[in-house]
Amino acid sequence: MIEIVPALLAGDRRALARLLTRIENESPGAAEALAALYPHTGRAHIIGVTGSPGTGKSSLVNAIAQAYRAQGKTVGIICVDPTSPFTGGAILGDRIRMRDLAGDAGVFIRSMATRGSLGGLSRTARDAVRALDAAGFDVILIETVGAGQSEVDIVRAAQTTLVVDAPGMGDDVQAIKAGILEIADVLVVNKADRPGVDNTVRALRTMIETGHPVRRGQMTTHHGQVMHLEADPLPPVDDSMWIPPILRTVAPEGQGIPEVLAAVKQHRDYLDQGNHRHQLERHQVEFELLTRLEAALMARFLGALPPQAMTELVDRVRARELDPAAAVEALLKLPKS
Amino acid sequence: MIEIVPALLAGDRRALARLLTRIENESPGAAEALAALYPHTGRAHIIGVTGSPGTGKSSLVNAIAQAYRAQGKTVGIICVDPTSPFTGGAILGDRIRMRDLAGDAGVFIRSMATRGSLGGLSRTARDAVRALDAAGFDVILIETVGAGQSEVDIVRAAQTTLVVDAPGMGDDVQAIKAGILEIADVLVVNKADRPGVDNTVRALRTMIETGHPVRRGQMTTHHGQVMHLEADPLPPVDDSMWIPPILRTVAPEGQGIPEVLAAVKQHRDYLDQGNHRHQLERHQVEFELLTRLEAALMARFLGALPPQAMTELVDRVRARELDPAAAVEALLKLPKS
Repeated sequence: MIEIVPALLAGDRRALARLLTRIENESPGAAEALAALYPHTGRAHIIGVTGSPGTGKSSLVNAIAQAYRAQGKTVGIICVDPTSPFTGGAILGDRIRMRDLAGDAGVFIRSMATRGSLGGLSRTARDAVRALDAAGFDVILIETVGAGQSEVDIVRAAQTTLVVDAPGMGDDVQAIKAGILEIADVLVVNKADRPGVDNTVRALRTMIETGHPVRRGQMTTHHGQVMHLEADPLPPVDDSMWIPPILRTVAPEGQGIPEVLAAVKQHRDYLDQGNHRHQLERHQVEFELLTRLEAALMARFLGALPPQAMTELVDRVRARELDPAAAVEALLKLPKS
Repeated sequence: MIEIVPALLAGDRRALARLLTRIENESPGAAEALAALYPHTGRAHIIGVTGSPGTGKSSLVNAIAQAYRAQGKTVGIICVDPTSPFTGGAILGDRIRMRDLAGDAGVFIRSMATRGSLGGLSRTARDAVRALDAAGFDVILIETVGAGQSEVDIVRAAQTTLVVDAPGMGDDVQAIKAGILEIADVLVVNKADRPGVDNTVRALRTMIETGHPVRRGQMTTHHGQVMHLEADPLPPVDDSMWIPPILRTVAPEGQGIPEVLAAVKQHRDYLDQGNHRHQLERHQVEFELLTRLEAALMARFLGALPPQAMTELVDRVRARELDPAAAVEALLKLPKS
């Protein structure tokens, strides 16, 4: 796989497509290519787009991509599709909704579906973004349905995150939205030509004003490990807070899209002030190292377990001879091969 | 905490409430009490209720609980609330929606909000279900918004899982639904007095008929580890498949609720045939041991790391001197204290 690196760095779309397939399948060759590409990453601006179901994220991504194209920027798009192996693949039809972008050599779109676990998907999505970054795209959009922790992890690869809402969603949607508000850099109320838009904007404003300060720094892994890196010699902390603006769009008509691009640019400028970008990157890298470490520790531990050890413990727990916590203690004490 | 065990086993609600608080706060005493309670669990029938936002899950849980009460059964309810630390707690208002159950000594309701990570929440929800089980409730309902992997993990503690849908949801809701269909034992189309209900039922039927067989056995951890236990001397495999029935309800009117209870009973009877219950329990225990093991390995590893090791590696990755995979390799090779 390493042999495609020069072609990919030169912007060859077929090389890129091949690497993305390897990344998606978690083929071994992908890691080697990604390691070679890594020093060439960090140039693109990465924009996460997430929000509750039914808010029109794909149309919004389509409109944003077209607006960047009109500025002469190249755009890579990763659509993370929450479908399961049960249905056998992408049923969102992103390619249909994004048909306006078809045939444009300055746009590259890739859908990624979950295969097994969303945790794995956030890892492959991050690698896919890196491949697009190394291939030279100016702007990379990652779109995912935002509802759970794992989807939040996916957009954590982004530098600027848009959280999309729309009028007329139910009140448990409000609750979910609250869960992703803390990762929002820009709030977009899409479908703003629908009744109730003022209420939606008002509700978001209240949530932002009454909420605690956005704690971007506090990233947790699946198991809730929070790690705060010690301070090191950094520029003096810039206490200015980014307050997410609330913008209204009607994506299919392009209404409000210039304002979204302006807000993304403002956020990018904000990151470049003080040590904001530095802090964001540290948290992102730390989060990635912790999640990769979890996976590596598990693979190593399970690989060294004596055969039948897990089966025997499962049966003893099932028979209630042993409680689950004690069984894990027993696993940790087993001699490893 | 161990001293409350006898009172809890005798059904003392205050003892139960105290333990649940400890579980939710992940206080150390909780583990000891749970270990002592573990041999007394396994009697309740545990029903998971999940589905997309806006499908009326809380009303459905309310109606189901009332119907069990009318049969003289005691009911425990755990509502898992996807709100974040950002909003500071439960905003779903489950207690309001479930006011019909207030003051009934045969019902116990507890809301649990996410604190940090949903991964942690699926662990605490499972422990909470165990506490209710040991306290003697006949039926335990776990309700959660179903959209991501972590929410799916939460209902994996259940023996029978209801996936709730409603007419008039958007098409990316359909995609999410597909992701949770594989865990459905009973499909409930709630709000069945709304227009479009026939389309919703038809779409679900198509998804079930065209889908691959439901692979309950294939549980993966966050990192996608799948573990298949070797066969051991079991009763001959019963190849009969459970086909999830599709039922229509209007929860606030109680319409369709007797049919839901009948389907749950049928599924329970199905589990008792052949080795279905045995297999389900093994997969559940195995999944729990794997997720607990992940958390334990991480805690142990991070606790033994030399100070500054993580910070230094994060900075080298950020500076692109090292790629993330190489950094994790380096972490694994560090001498431990």
